[in-house]
Amino acid sequence: MAEYIFGVDIGGTSIKFGLFLTDGTVLDRWEVNTRLENNGTEIIPDVAKSIQNKMYEKKLKKEEIAGVGVGVPGPVTENGEVIVAVNLHWGHTKVAKDLEKLLNIPVKAGNDANVAALGEMWKGGGRGTKNLIMVTLGTGVGGGIIVDGKIVAGAHGAGGEIGHASVEPDFPIACNCGNHGCLEQFTSATGIVRIAKEEIAKAENTKTVLIENEISAKSIFDAYKEGDEVSKKIVNQFARYLGKALAIFACVIDPEIFVIGGGVSKAGQPLLRAVEQYYRKFAFKSCKETPLVQAKLGNDAGIYGAAKLALDAAR
Amino acid sequence: MAEYIFGVDIGGTSIKFGLFLTDGTVLDRWEVNTRLENNGTEIIPDVAKSIQNKMYEKKLKKEEIAGVGVGVPGPVTENGEVIVAVNLHWGHTKVAKDLEKLLNIPVKAGNDANVAALGEMWKGGGRGTKNLIMVTLGTGVGGGIIVDGKIVAGAHGAGGEIGHASVEPDFPIACNCGNHGCLEQFTSATGIVRIAKEEIAKAENTKTVLIENEISAKSIFDAYKEGDEVSKKIVNQFARYLGKALAIFACVIDPEIFVIGGGVSKAGQPLLRAVEQYYRKFAFKSCKETPLVQAKLGNDAGIYGAAKLALDAAR
Repeated sequence: MAEYIFGVDIGGTSIKFGLFLTDGTVLDRWEVNTRLENNGTEIIPDVAKSIQNKMYEKKLKKEEIAGVGVGVPGPVTENGEVIVAVNLHWGHTKVAKDLEKLLNIPVKAGNDANVAALGEMWKGGGRGTKNLIMVTLGTGVGGGIIVDGKIVAGAHGAGGEIGHASVEPDFPIACNCGNHGCLEQFTSATGIVRIAKEEIAKAENTKTVLIENEISAKSIFDAYKEGDEVSKKIVNQFARYLGKALAIFACVIDPEIFVIGGGVSKAGQPLLRAVEQYYRKFAFKSCKETPLVQAKLGNDAGIYGAAKLALDAAR
Repeated sequence: MAEYIFGVDIGGTSIKFGLFLTDGTVLDRWEVNTRLENNGTEIIPDVAKSIQNKMYEKKLKKEEIAGVGVGVPGPVTENGEVIVAVNLHWGHTKVAKDLEKLLNIPVKAGNDANVAALGEMWKGGGRGTKNLIMVTLGTGVGGGIIVDGKIVAGAHGAGGEIGHASVEPDFPIACNCGNHGCLEQFTSATGIVRIAKEEIAKAENTKTVLIENEISAKSIFDAYKEGDEVSKKIVNQFARYLGKALAIFACVIDPEIFVIGGGVSKAGQPLLRAVEQYYRKFAFKSCKETPLVQAKLGNDAGIYGAAKLALDAAR
């Protein structure tokens, strides 16, 4: 009987693997370097080899594997084709089909941020729910939407691209995407540092522990926890942008929970409480009490979600 | 074999009925008054009687009916219970269960705006799609979200409550819901008239065909089509608010299509083109070409959607 699943998270630097039981117990985790040479054509064969080696090592037969799930940093269609994945040097690539051919095991593929959201639903901060919005606050801002236990990939693979919701279209600085005033310009690690520099320049007479050339999301939240006045202003701006945006998103799908992950979210409860305060203020009355929780799986969300994707397809 | 379905749309003034074949062909349409007396307790028995009379008239047996779908003006849970429906004088009401008991036929219930979106997907402006956002521009602004062919009801029945997305939280006037700067304050029939009054007051020296005491959404769009300068400013404001909000919503679920309905949408193509221009400007690159179309079923969207709801449950 098929009782094992592989979850694979392909990133621009490394490929993470997990071997799971179908109940979500992780038996093994490992990673290999991502080889970008030859337009990334080595990647899929490398994934296949790594899985086959693990099967040999663990004495697993093909019939015992329910499936392989793969997360990819780019838009992925319903049938597992990637349109483009810049970080992997990929153009149009039939990930699921190609890997399936090499392994002769069913493969499912999804966008990495969406797959991470699925992982957090299965075994992380959103455990026990079937409808959630995950927000990943890192260098950029990513997201994933889960409705009725399934990823909302979207008609153009842009489901959950909440970092590019243009919340301040008159904002003078352009986002990497070309638009102006995207949520990630205010709530990513980079965005917070930009806000911080502005606030420090404005607050010349206010004492602050922040030192202009050493500012990071971490130093700002550390200072905020110590009660630093300038940091309070910075965090309030950040929290207002995010809380307001989440309140708007809630009017679309009314999730059971918001799961906040990514490097910035390591600031933990003080950050969540600041965002929550604005969320509760701006949310539609029926949704005011929707919980905001911290993601739990960290960098493993991808392999968990990929495994769950394969598991759901096998059922 | 079950080949007929009833679609029912319960409103505060009248209850609309449709008798359909399972392929969506409408065989009969009729309506009865909504009796609000006795806290609306007459409504469900009235619906049952009207359906039974029609079955008698058309000589339909219970076994030939695949199901009955019902749209209700209020939040409806997954199992067909209404939390509250002010316009029907209802508190907590087990619509599906109660009607099922009277008819001995399977009943499904949903929120009326969500059900209308399902109707537009099945046989209206969104025909051929499975993922859409419907916006209903009337006295207020309602909406419905369809993902993978199914209504997104939301954890608190607030899925698709896009009229209450707080897009301008600093707006001084409060919305009926208690928040400030909800989308419906700018893009409903009432909202457009308010914007119009402000623009007319500002534009004392600009000639306009608009007459202050006779302003309606219709007169504004009529004047806009004739090239009236003040009306252009009004419609631009309206279109910018709606286009910007749709661009944000698209980052959440990335629909295949937007369907615009309700009284205000009768202004037709010029309105759609004005909104589209702002939508294209603010949307994330992958979603810029998502079509905006007019709803097609008008007041019948509810009975079509209710029938589809029952049909999907029967399959």
